[in-house]
Amino acid sequence: MKLLEDRIRKDGKIKGGDVLKVDSFLNHQMDVDLFNEIGKEFQRLYGDCGVTKILTIEASGIGIACVTAQFFHCPVIFAKKNKTKNIAGDVYTSQVESFTHGKVYDIIVAKEFLLPTDRVLLIDDFLANGSALQGLINLVRDAGATLVGAGICVEKAFQPGGDLIRSMGVRVESLARVKSMSEENGITFC
Amino acid sequence: MKLLEDRIRKDGKIKGGDVLKVDSFLNHQMDVDLFNEIGKEFQRLYGDCGVTKILTIEASGIGIACVTAQFFHCPVIFAKKNKTKNIAGDVYTSQVESFTHGKVYDIIVAKEFLLPTDRVLLIDDFLANGSALQGLINLVRDAGATLVGAGICVEKAFQPGGDLIRSMGVRVESLARVKSMSEENGITFC
Repeated sequence: MKLLEDRIRKDGKIKGGDVLKVDSFLNHQMDVDLFNEIGKEFQRLYGDCGVTKILTIEASGIGIACVTAQFFHCPVIFAKKNKTKNIAGDVYTSQVESFTHGKVYDIIVAKEFLLPTDRVLLIDDFLANGSALQGLINLVRDAGATLVGAGICVEKAFQPGGDLIRSMGVRVESLARVKSMSEENGITFC
Repeated sequence: MKLLEDRIRKDGKIKGGDVLKVDSFLNHQMDVDLFNEIGKEFQRLYGDCGVTKILTIEASGIGIACVTAQFFHCPVIFAKKNKTKNIAGDVYTSQVESFTHGKVYDIIVAKEFLLPTDRVLLIDDFLANGSALQGLINLVRDAGATLVGAGICVEKAFQPGGDLIRSMGVRVESLARVKSMSEENGITFC
């Protein structure tokens, strides 16, 4: 998606070789007009797949998922990172390793919201090592729901997550695939 | 907002006297069509206030804030609950006490995204004790930005947060104000 690639070139910041900061428009400050264009593109890609639920993970996937869901006219569920008093015991659980935070955590989704009849589209801002996406896939499979595929804004294609998930037979559509990046030479896309 | 009150009456679940679960449509599974109506209502209330930024707090405020921002044509910032490697040191910080989670945590926002020239609308799903909202207000004041007001979906008016924040001179607009609730007698709105 040229609009997103151009925006990453313009406003993305490369830090220390493998961190791509897009927090001025994607995952801290959020450009909702851009999210609208992203949502339209996901609808173009997955609009004929009978999606009944969009599943994302807190926190930075939620905004993109909600704006995207307007084009699918379906609810969004976000997997929660911590079990709180407000969620009853009846949850699907999966483990995710965060390379950003350097820790392993559980993600959960209430069983009542993810049904065997659901056709689920996963949405997230980033795909790098694939751990978060793998965690979401596990939740969908535990529920016996149908996984339609994943819609990712930025894939770091030089990290193994995308290949790993695709090799499992999961459809992954990434709107911007970073082939390489460095503070000296900037970003090239696939 | 009658639509939201009706939905709370229909799908909200009261647990143990003071917990109102609305996680089937507001803050775990999210009804984005409802969010659209909520966004329109916030626009009706605050549309003439020159809002330049919407500020919310992760995680459950983000979806509502993003859908609402489409009506204001302004960016959303979400205050983060944990400091990660991806955020540089230049942040505003405030403390929030979570009664749901039973702990105190820091919220942060990068200084570069909250400017003295900004006119900020706060958006959140719930207002109960007011600690999260107070934390967001502190961030806006630290930045020297103008606080336009707060748009809340559900206010538990029998808890002190709403009165406390209003007594500080802050405009608070809550779309559904719960006057009382119990498992036996259900919910009454103000």
